[in-house]
Amino acid sequence: MSSIFKGNINVSIFGESHGAGIGVVIDGLPAGEKIDMQKVLHFMKRRAPKSDGTSTYRYEKDIPEVLSGMLDGVTTGAPLAAIIRNTDTKSGDYKNISHLARPAHADYTAYIRYDGFNDIKGGGHFSGRLTAPLCFAGAICTQILSHRGIHIGAHIKSIYDVHDDSFDPINISHDDIEAIRNRNFPVINEKIADKMKSVILDARNNLDSLGGVIECCAIGMPAGIGSPMFSGLENIIASAIFAIPAVKGIEFGAGFASSRMTGSENNDEFYIDGDTVKTRTNNHGGILGGISSGMPITMNVAFKPTPSIARPQHTIDYQKSEDAVIEIKGRHDPCIVPRAVPCVESVMGISILSSIGSSKTL
Amino acid sequence: MSSIFKGNINVSIFGESHGAGIGVVIDGLPAGEKIDMQKVLHFMKRRAPKSDGTSTYRYEKDIPEVLSGMLDGVTTGAPLAAIIRNTDTKSGDYKNISHLARPAHADYTAYIRYDGFNDIKGGGHFSGRLTAPLCFAGAICTQILSHRGIHIGAHIKSIYDVHDDSFDPINISHDDIEAIRNRNFPVINEKIADKMKSVILDARNNLDSLGGVIECCAIGMPAGIGSPMFSGLENIIASAIFAIPAVKGIEFGAGFASSRMTGSENNDEFYIDGDTVKTRTNNHGGILGGISSGMPITMNVAFKPTPSIARPQHTIDYQKSEDAVIEIKGRHDPCIVPRAVPCVESVMGISILSSIGSSKTL
Amino acid sequence: MSSIFKGNINVSIFGESHGAGIGVVIDGLPAGEKIDMQKVLHFMKRRAPKSDGTSTYRYEKDIPEVLSGMLDGVTTGAPLAAIIRNTDTKSGDYKNISHLARPAHADYTAYIRYDGFNDIKGGGHFSGRLTAPLCFAGAICTQILSHRGIHIGAHIKSIYDVHDDSFDPINISHDDIEAIRNRNFPVINEKIADKMKSVILDARNNLDSLGGVIECCAIGMPAGIGSPMFSGLENIIASAIFAIPAVKGIEFGAGFASSRMTGSENNDEFYIDGDTVKTRTNNHGGILGGISSGMPITMNVAFKPTPSIARPQHTIDYQKSEDAVIEIKGRHDPCIVPRAVPCVESVMGISILSSIGSSKTL
Amino acid sequence: MSSIFKGNINVSIFGESHGAGIGVVIDGLPAGEKIDMQKVLHFMKRRAPKSDGTSTYRYEKDIPEVLSGMLDGVTTGAPLAAIIRNTDTKSGDYKNISHLARPAHADYTAYIRYDGFNDIKGGGHFSGRLTAPLCFAGAICTQILSHRGIHIGAHIKSIYDVHDDSFDPINISHDDIEAIRNRNFPVINEKIADKMKSVILDARNNLDSLGGVIECCAIGMPAGIGSPMFSGLENIIASAIFAIPAVKGIEFGAGFASSRMTGSENNDEFYIDGDTVKTRTNNHGGILGGISSGMPITMNVAFKPTPSIARPQHTIDYQKSEDAVIEIKGRHDPCIVPRAVPCVESVMGISILSSIGSSKTL
Repeated sequence: MSSIFKGNINVSIFGESHGAGIGVVIDGLPAGEKIDMQKVLHFMKRRAPKSDGTSTYRYEKDIPEVLSGMLDGVTTGAPLAAIIRNTDTKSGDYKNISHLARPAHADYTAYIRYDGFNDIKGGGHFSGRLTAPLCFAGAICTQILSHRGIHIGAHIKSIYDVHDDSFDPINISHDDIEAIRNRNFPVINEKIADKMKSVILDARNNLDSLGGVIECCAIGMPAGIGSPMFSGLENIIASAIFAIPAVKGIEFGAGFASSRMTGSENNDEFYIDGDTVKTRTNNHGGILGGISSGMPITMNVAFKPTPSIARPQHTIDYQKSEDAVIEIKGRHDPCIVPRAVPCVESVMGISILSSIGSSKTL
Repeated sequence: MSSIFKGNINVSIFGESHGAGIGVVIDGLPAGEKIDMQKVLHFMKRRAPKSDGTSTYRYEKDIPEVLSGMLDGVTTGAPLAAIIRNTDTKSGDYKNISHLARPAHADYTAYIRYDGFNDIKGGGHFSGRLTAPLCFAGAICTQILSHRGIHIGAHIKSIYDVHDDSFDPINISHDDIEAIRNRNFPVINEKIADKMKSVILDARNNLDSLGGVIECCAIGMPAGIGSPMFSGLENIIASAIFAIPAVKGIEFGAGFASSRMTGSENNDEFYIDGDTVKTRTNNHGGILGGISSGMPITMNVAFKPTPSIARPQHTIDYQKSEDAVIEIKGRHDPCIVPRAVPCVESVMGISILSSIGSSKTL
Repeated sequence: MSSIFKGNINVSIFGESHGAGIGVVIDGLPAGEKIDMQKVLHFMKRRAPKSDGTSTYRYEKDIPEVLSGMLDGVTTGAPLAAIIRNTDTKSGDYKNISHLARPAHADYTAYIRYDGFNDIKGGGHFSGRLTAPLCFAGAICTQILSHRGIHIGAHIKSIYDVHDDSFDPINISHDDIEAIRNRNFPVINEKIADKMKSVILDARNNLDSLGGVIECCAIGMPAGIGSPMFSGLENIIASAIFAIPAVKGIEFGAGFASSRMTGSENNDEFYIDGDTVKTRTNNHGGILGGISSGMPITMNVAFKPTPSIARPQHTIDYQKSEDAVIEIKGRHDPCIVPRAVPCVESVMGISILSSIGSSKTL
Repeated sequence: MSSIFKGNINVSIFGESHGAGIGVVIDGLPAGEKIDMQKVLHFMKRRAPKSDGTSTYRYEKDIPEVLSGMLDGVTTGAPLAAIIRNTDTKSGDYKNISHLARPAHADYTAYIRYDGFNDIKGGGHFSGRLTAPLCFAGAICTQILSHRGIHIGAHIKSIYDVHDDSFDPINISHDDIEAIRNRNFPVINEKIADKMKSVILDARNNLDSLGGVIECCAIGMPAGIGSPMFSGLENIIASAIFAIPAVKGIEFGAGFASSRMTGSENNDEFYIDGDTVKTRTNNHGGILGGISSGMPITMNVAFKPTPSIARPQHTIDYQKSEDAVIEIKGRHDPCIVPRAVPCVESVMGISILSSIGSSKTL
């Protein structure tokens, strides 16, 4: 139906890769929240292409212009709208592939869905570029959550076959999160960064691409946030995570690994720790019955390799309905996982902020 | 916010495990659809406890009574409501654990969320019993989909460390699906059934429980169903799947495995096959950019082990805020995966039927 | 799309006039609210046919059976579902009019909308009978509002050309509301009751019917409830009011009369009264910019005459597509306005309770 | 919750009167619709201040910039976003009234709702200026409807005590609508225009303001559009109409007048006219049971007088909580009704286009 995240917070994202601009309207934000715009820009910059060869060379300054919803740096409660102009749009690069379906892209499905009227340049509305306004919304929402003591962090858990350490699911500190957030390459174990970059550069040299996994957590969550069945935290986060192109899977807590455990291994025992209720392990990932337990929320998100690769691929011309070979030109990320880290945080932040409103409100 | 699946089809589920009854209202169904109620009952029966020891001994006939929305076996277009009486409710079994949080259950989170007013008997609204009305809705929706040539099937992909074969993601036939659907133990490779049952019985004997993975597919999907960003097929299915208790992860197509592939391995090449567009592999799982490609939709869903195990566990008394030991009595499934197969199909069916309405409607 | 009121409170209504039963699922209620079921029944009884000749002789006991969402008379926070069996259904009365469109009824439009598959007996899902579950939901919601000091009342403002007094829009007391609520014929000026009944009986004798206006108010509203543009109190109430069959108009405060005022007449001046902000007049009807001002919310709702009249009417046979004459048999209200009073209160109550959740929630 | 119209079409409106800009995102539009931007500008210009003294002297060019959703003048199916810069913002005019509640405005209620953080300059998000993006959305939606043969028109039915003729509810032609649309002062009976202007100028001279009524219709509607109970055409239109500031009432067909009719007067008899079903009268206003009958949809919308009047008024300082006197400076419309005509058409157009998607979609 729509490119709108709907909840207590509504996030309406618009734009096409090579159109005039992209942007977002965030509706339902609480009034009176001081927003540090420098932090917003820093958050968004983490999504910008890296200059180390692991990203596309397309460069957009991507400075959002806020049109409404803020006054003197404070939210007014009215819809917060921001736009980002598209500037570095070399449409020429896309001319010759117009009606060839790029494998693993949405070209063909969008063509069918929109009867051929969709803007196909750079993937149009399906472009990864639309994650820039998503990150703007995420930057706002996570900052508001931090005012309530809730902090969200993420790191690259793996790229191809290179694995980072994992968060300690029962003891993630705000400092851990901040440290990773300030790293150019967001991993826990910094020694692994070069290895990851190296497999990415190898893939680029092979005219190929790589996928990976991002781990994300939220700490400082109060217990009791969320709702049963279709409106739990897991439902909302899982739904929104697939707004990020290339996501193919999500798991909470022990996730798929819990399917290979026994109950006695998987069950997290509760205990009283001073004033708070905790669990000794955190296989449940901070959510039980859709509702937060007070333990860190943890999840893993799987990304497929960047669909755009430079080597020739068999495909079809969907207008002519005939087989064809495509050679994708243009500037593309050999691996989008490093840039996707703040996108995943954004989804977590928007989902949690939206859910907070829906609990115990009467 | 709610126990309502919202879309072009709305599914409102109500009830508590030991209350007077449970049920569902399905709103937005097309009018004029002939429903074979015997098939509905057969579908629901697949969710009923098995008599082979792999399930709880609690037995509910679970015959739904349709109150509205059908006339002479045909949908009228008005909301279709059905209720199921709770009959075999031995509340006594739950008396002694009233304020002890069962590990991996929602007892503690629901207590916080509802200020202690929630019905805790048998897990109340969080009980797996609520999947009975979900399956009723699924039985209706999948039957309507079958009128449009779309068929949904699922099987147990793994229990603990015992694995079934996988669906052939590019060549699943309607016959394959029907064959599994009629098996008492829904696996592709029937030789594996006894092994699975045996690890489940072992777990039961060890006062323990097991999890597993269910694979589900939809065949006959036309291309072009779905919408971008927050309203894609993946978003809707992923959101709804977490309405099933014990689900901890979901992946589409190659899913997490695609994070370990290169682009050239993962990209599915398109080709023309007579009148239709196909892909030679199906790592994308039939969905690109949230929109169906016409290839089978495939997904895996991870289930944690049944939280209720008979051995003593450390936990808390959440009323007294003190540590405690719990021994869960009552009748419980050592592994809910076999019974969850139609639940997963239901989520797929409801999500797809709801999405069909939203495409190309103007 | 649906017979569901969606908001922080979701109210899903189902059923058909002559089907097995009708009912409602109320999702999103706060937990811990004590419900006096005797008051609920009293509220619903006000909607039941009167024995004084002003109503239909069809009599349904309409005792709702609560299936979930309450425990020992207190809301659990889970969806509250209630069903009402249809018992006094003389379908025979409707046999001969099956394919004749009753003028001013939804027979023809529903036939087109549902391709002829809708249940037409007694109007099916479009029957006024569906206001019984609406009133059940209203009885619950208004009772919960009363726990917060908000009270809702309504009276017959006019029937045909007979007018009751109006509420004093700046000084409505809880006692005023209760007094009317306990009257058999809900008017402020009891002397007018007989005159109203008399025009209704005259209409019945003329094989005709009458419409009227209901005035409804909410007192004790805190200021600041509601939201701008599409989610204001007026938007939500106005949307929901048309769920009541026969409603043709709604106005808040001075309403249409304000279109004939000057600004200096219409503007309500604010003043400080002790601790509270008040207005000296209440032409705004307690809502400014979609948000409550703290003054009583007042509105008028226009009802057309009951469509079913006993005299012959020209119409069409919509199956044969030919002109025809219809003589409506069966039992019908010569004026539904008296019975609609609690329905209007219900819409006000559901809308306000739903809006309360959405304000200042973060 | 939000400034978003939600349905098959979603319209998200943002902006504040004196902020950087205002705008709209229209999500869910069909792809492939050719949009004549000159017609869009003409539609919006009808909302612009008139130069004949009946409007404010504040002048904004209000040229919308389309950022996405259109390619070469054709909708792409992606969200269509447009922004309008605020240029003529004399904030100085508002400095001295900052904390005085303008009577009949939302100043006080917004202050309470947003804890004093809302942008109060010019009414902020509650300003009538936000109807500019509403009209942009309306211009797009009505143009798309016209591609389907559905045309929407409106005129000033009354201002204060001066009345225009009414639409002939059974015989409105497209030409009638176009003729009014091209008039500078949108009335049916052009002789009445000067009289209306004259009472407006009198009011201005008296430092006062006037309200009025707008009649709006949709012709060419196919029968069968809409849904029962909470999702009927009346529900959707009535909900959205209150997004226009100063609206205090709405009625469909004969509306409040039908409350003073008998059933035999009010009931519209059906008849067959060649291939189509018609009614001989149209008191039902083209909607029965929430669903279109194929007859013209007709409605009246009541507007209160412009709240801003130049004479001194008693009010409060809501920050100091004390009584005060306000003298509103600035440029204001003595009557907003003439400019509101396209706003009402917009609501009708958006609501109908959104409803079309929801009918018979499966």
